[in-house]
Amino acid sequence: MIAVDWGTSSLRVYRLDDDGHVSETRQSADGILSVSDGAFAQTLENAAGDWMSAGTAPIVMSGMIGSRQGWQEAAYVTCPAGLPEIASAMCRVQWKSPAQSAPPVQSESTAQETRHAWIAPGLSCLGATGVNDVMRGEEVQILGILHELGDGEHRICLPGTHSKWAGVRDRRITSFSTYMTGEVFAVLKQHSILGRTMADGDFDESAFVDGVTRAADSGGLLHHLFGVRAEALAGHIHDKQSASYLSGILIGHELRAATPGIERFHLVGAGELTRLYALGASILKLPTVVHESDAVTRGLFALAQNLTGNA
Amino acid sequence: MIAVDWGTSSLRVYRLDDDGHVSETRQSADGILSVSDGAFAQTLENAAGDWMSAGTAPIVMSGMIGSRQGWQEAAYVTCPAGLPEIASAMCRVQWKSPAQSAPPVQSESTAQETRHAWIAPGLSCLGATGVNDVMRGEEVQILGILHELGDGEHRICLPGTHSKWAGVRDRRITSFSTYMTGEVFAVLKQHSILGRTMADGDFDESAFVDGVTRAADSGGLLHHLFGVRAEALAGHIHDKQSASYLSGILIGHELRAATPGIERFHLVGAGELTRLYALGASILKLPTVVHESDAVTRGLFALAQNLTGNA
Repeated sequence: MIAVDWGTSSLRVYRLDDDGHVSETRQSADGILSVSDGAFAQTLENAAGDWMSAGTAPIVMSGMIGSRQGWQEAAYVTCPAGLPEIASAMCRVQWKSPAQSAPPVQSESTAQETRHAWIAPGLSCLGATGVNDVMRGEEVQILGILHELGDGEHRICLPGTHSKWAGVRDRRITSFSTYMTGEVFAVLKQHSILGRTMADGDFDESAFVDGVTRAADSGGLLHHLFGVRAEALAGHIHDKQSASYLSGILIGHELRAATPGIERFHLVGAGELTRLYALGASILKLPTVVHESDAVTRGLFALAQNLTGNA
Repeated sequence: MIAVDWGTSSLRVYRLDDDGHVSETRQSADGILSVSDGAFAQTLENAAGDWMSAGTAPIVMSGMIGSRQGWQEAAYVTCPAGLPEIASAMCRVQWKSPAQSAPPVQSESTAQETRHAWIAPGLSCLGATGVNDVMRGEEVQILGILHELGDGEHRICLPGTHSKWAGVRDRRITSFSTYMTGEVFAVLKQHSILGRTMADGDFDESAFVDGVTRAADSGGLLHHLFGVRAEALAGHIHDKQSASYLSGILIGHELRAATPGIERFHLVGAGELTRLYALGASILKLPTVVHESDAVTRGLFALAQNLTGNA
């Protein structure tokens, strides 16, 4: 199969074998925002047309490609939802294979004129006080670790620009909350007065730890944020430490707000940001289980295996 | 006397009579950021040179004019501090009166070549956990209402881009905290994804009330912020209501974080923002006393009266 993780700013395609193992990966900056005139089919053909011509099917996609700004809107499925509900709500797109732009075709797939792919829906969730929340893409990552989690209750964190915290019970996503932490960090650094006392520098673990610890003080986040400036003016933190201190304050606030009564949680993701969440959790003495970064391909593989009914 | 409120983006000069009443007011956009080549004396002469030539003295200034980016840095005074400590830490700037650019001089002040003015210092405060905080300008507004407050303990809120909450005991400022609420609102509206579902519109009281109420829910500010987008996607709030909803969430979080165990507080300021804080406080059933907007001229007048010692 071909697994496609198609977000706002990037496109990742994976070729999976029959056991769900990734045999080949390609990545580009062709996120949905950079696709003009709705040329999604052509963009996908450019990324993986040779795999399709070689007969690799089915194609299953997740992420913002299913949003109103994407290829086709795949309506949100309402929580609680597990693999069956999400698989049966996928929507199908089809297009003509671009014979003219392809290299001379010599394989047996010459006759194939129409190609199609599946887009996973997002999830929506109504909180206890009636406030809505949505995710699109992360639900597939969660599907990817459901087997590993097994039955019972679990809490899952997916760090990101908009990080997601989901509750899972017996292999179904029961509810979730989004935290704007990553985007708030970026806009404060780039556009607020806090950026004026920030210099580029390597991650400063000591400043990050101070920030996470600060998040436990009274006064609240809006007050703690100003401390990034006041501490710089007082010479308590250096310009090269300020960004790490701010990051610690924000992630500390998120971790504290998202884990009341929680004894441990699962972290899904890879790279620097996930490492920061794991570090923050260790400072707060919250045990974490970090899952490998192939959750999205495992989730898309699980969806592909559940396609039989509506393919 | 001449009272000067000189901030980052605006300059306000007031002519006060011997009883401290404002007889004339002028305002311009000549904030310290728009003054080039350190031409502060010339800018002040342009704003109030005729008052000075007419013999109105002394001149007392407050605000960012005393910062490192201003005319001369007036070092922070440490809390606790009252009128005597702040008055005695004022610093003096002097300059030559610009005879060439002035109209033909006919008053008795012809001989006066050198003019001088006083700059009020800012305040700094070390919180319980050793985190620093600073204010510059608001301390003079607090001085302006100290007489009205009288002895005893009081809590004061000064709404603004960086709003200040100060504790006062027996006419001395004992501690304070800054909240970045106003700036966070502005950068999220202008630079984050939340701005994409916001349309210009009048203030929407119902959405603001929903935001203040939302701030009491579990999940924390970083989660509640994302709700501005999710609620818009769900059609629960209209694009014209989004900004008011966001404003309510932020002010609600500030009010809740800044008033634990507080039965009432004093609001100092005028205009729309102060009205929003009063509305937010009423939703949270926090009684407020709103003080008139002339706190800054009353504070500068009090400082002028305490100049005798070091003038």
